[in-house]
Amino acid sequence: MYVSDCIGVNDKGHLTIGGCDTVELARRFGTPVYVYDEMEIRRNCQEFVRSIEDNYAGNGMVLYASKAFCCKEICRICAQENMGLDVVSGGELYTALSVDFPVEKIYFHGNNKTADELEQAVEHNVGRIVVDNIFELEMLERIAGDAGKTAEILFRIKPGIDAHTHSFVKTGQIDSKFGFALETGEAMAAVKKALEMKHIRLVGVHCHIGSQIFDIDPFELAARVMLDFMAQVKKETGLELDILNLGGGFGIKYLQTDRPRPFSDYMKKVSAVVKEYSAELGLKIPYIIIEPGRSIVGAAGLTLYTVGAVKKIPDVRTYVSVDGGMGDNPRYVLYQSKYEVLCANKANEPRECTATIAGKCCESGDLIQEWTSVQRVEPGDILAVLATGAYNYSMASNYNRICRPPVVMVKDGEARIVVERETYADMTRKDI
Amino acid sequence: MYVSDCIGVNDKGHLTIGGCDTVELARRFGTPVYVYDEMEIRRNCQEFVRSIEDNYAGNGMVLYASKAFCCKEICRICAQENMGLDVVSGGELYTALSVDFPVEKIYFHGNNKTADELEQAVEHNVGRIVVDNIFELEMLERIAGDAGKTAEILFRIKPGIDAHTHSFVKTGQIDSKFGFALETGEAMAAVKKALEMKHIRLVGVHCHIGSQIFDIDPFELAARVMLDFMAQVKKETGLELDILNLGGGFGIKYLQTDRPRPFSDYMKKVSAVVKEYSAELGLKIPYIIIEPGRSIVGAAGLTLYTVGAVKKIPDVRTYVSVDGGMGDNPRYVLYQSKYEVLCANKANEPRECTATIAGKCCESGDLIQEWTSVQRVEPGDILAVLATGAYNYSMASNYNRICRPPVVMVKDGEARIVVERETYADMTRKDI
Repeated sequence: MYVSDCIGVNDKGHLTIGGCDTVELARRFGTPVYVYDEMEIRRNCQEFVRSIEDNYAGNGMVLYASKAFCCKEICRICAQENMGLDVVSGGELYTALSVDFPVEKIYFHGNNKTADELEQAVEHNVGRIVVDNIFELEMLERIAGDAGKTAEILFRIKPGIDAHTHSFVKTGQIDSKFGFALETGEAMAAVKKALEMKHIRLVGVHCHIGSQIFDIDPFELAARVMLDFMAQVKKETGLELDILNLGGGFGIKYLQTDRPRPFSDYMKKVSAVVKEYSAELGLKIPYIIIEPGRSIVGAAGLTLYTVGAVKKIPDVRTYVSVDGGMGDNPRYVLYQSKYEVLCANKANEPRECTATIAGKCCESGDLIQEWTSVQRVEPGDILAVLATGAYNYSMASNYNRICRPPVVMVKDGEARIVVERETYADMTRKDI
Repeated sequence: MYVSDCIGVNDKGHLTIGGCDTVELARRFGTPVYVYDEMEIRRNCQEFVRSIEDNYAGNGMVLYASKAFCCKEICRICAQENMGLDVVSGGELYTALSVDFPVEKIYFHGNNKTADELEQAVEHNVGRIVVDNIFELEMLERIAGDAGKTAEILFRIKPGIDAHTHSFVKTGQIDSKFGFALETGEAMAAVKKALEMKHIRLVGVHCHIGSQIFDIDPFELAARVMLDFMAQVKKETGLELDILNLGGGFGIKYLQTDRPRPFSDYMKKVSAVVKEYSAELGLKIPYIIIEPGRSIVGAAGLTLYTVGAVKKIPDVRTYVSVDGGMGDNPRYVLYQSKYEVLCANKANEPRECTATIAGKCCESGDLIQEWTSVQRVEPGDILAVLATGAYNYSMASNYNRICRPPVVMVKDGEARIVVERETYADMTRKDI
């Protein structure tokens, strides 16, 4: 009925998530508030982990791409679910280390890691560093050398495939700030350079072909391109790479009309391609890594707001203003992202109104959704925006000096705070 | 030579701001770092304040629109420059109160103030509340009544003028989340309702017609529309309103090719219109308020970064990655805003390269500027992005768990921190 199975309606006609009444949650924790269903997150983790067990004999690892939503508790949950972690900054690494996330299962990504970040990664023996460019490779060789260590690395490769929702192209992705190009020989030159280095051990390659992808074909194609490169590396250098990291980008359900494939379909098809094509190329079957982020947390989260002013402008449109906005949900103003909106305290009523959901920021563009179907709402109603679990808390700002909302985790009818609400004092803490 | 007179080049060929060597600033405070020239901010304040003295006999007030850049120090500076303050949230109000900003000179704006915010405003006797809608009016009447006070208010009016850079239209602005419409009779009905209330004293009207406006005509037209409404209010209710608040939106120089009018031109022309047209309508000359934000701080600020990887992709483009990005400068990804970019340590060299300045976030869209002219840069160079003083610090996020940069204020060759750099510990402070 909704975008996620963790969403329902109780006998009061109130929207529920993970067995909790959202109207109660709004009352108890205040609004705006981000709410996540822990069991939904765990089910998503388990589905990915099992897909590697079932289709690939467990010869791989699922990394949670923590940029989608990073806090201590999500790192704990992923560790418990036998996931690895994809971090893209010193801050994400710090968060993971602060809850003793197993370092050997952390991969450090990013197109422009700073010296400080590489030192931090080397100092803490982060599992692997995904090296993006030659400048970084040389910097890492120096830093690992100074520390008397050997850094295990993967190279980020541009496979020349640019996959967007529902379609993909095979060209153009060379125009990216990320990674080494194949067609120019840049990637192979980097491999040869790495092989000459004393404090670098190249163990694999990584690619990432896009976001919110619904089709499996581009992933299969990317796997083939990467295996071709691995075969070329073996041929030219004798090095047989162990690890093939195929990144993330799996599409999720933002709207009821979205039809993502079950996550397990992905590994079923890609595993078959990797196994067959490795054999064909005379390569050993690589250890495989996938990096879901949005798929783990996106539809497991929602945001609750309280309705303030409702402005019906005859023959124009109805603006429903809420007590949050682009500060806590920047995805609409950034990408015009679509969401489903529901009146949480009238969840059983028909969504017979068309409204524009406006935030409270002093900016005309501060809208959360335009021309969306919603129940007849009044001031004081609780509004739920569904599938806000990915890239909202993580991109949230204090624009207009509005405090960032808390994050509440629900599980089997129980709720707990995992990130506290900011206070005015927090926002001025760094002010002199 | 540059977008602001506070920018120069010293005998080392380094870019300077407010007499400080930016390369030295980068070394001393680290990068990324926001730098503002205090004297430039003060000159901008003074130009606006003087324009009301010179053209309008001082019968008005300039409010700094703090959403453009809010911290304790900018509130102190504005207070010292005899400015009032436009706040749009409890957080901005809290910041102003924390440095004892004169409350009578604070105006509280916003399309969806919460009950908590209205209580906070009433409790602290904020000068005026700019009421946006009927729901808010009724809430404020209750809150002021409970506090045994009378709230002085202005109404936010939609003048039916939508001004964008270099052009404006007279229709369509009724489709806005902000304010009361004139043409539907909504505004007049609100006036009559306010007059019946015991704890509300309506003293004026406010409008805001857009952002980054280079033309003065739409401001003149807005003034006429607002005076027409004030005359209608006088005719229908007998109430002669004291205050005409014409908002902000004055264009600034982001690029050398931008040609904003001197700020004083605005008051020269608008004053004449207001004085003449008030007389024509038989109204007393109103107390006037203007609300510059971007004009005060935009060109007075710049951001310094350190260059990391430089990726030259043959026949495609050159990506220059810096140690910040959409987290500290979200305006490019949001609005494709244009900026000038300079290599601070090679400021005298010709800008003979065309480059795309990329941030370090794990997102393809994380760019600060595309296809921009810049000196030949190498890793370790310091890059300056000019005119970043407005809406960057205020909209900054911790996306990718990257710490927000510090704010450094320079003055006559001396530099001091006014907002400290965030730490990893700050970012996880609210995590349970």
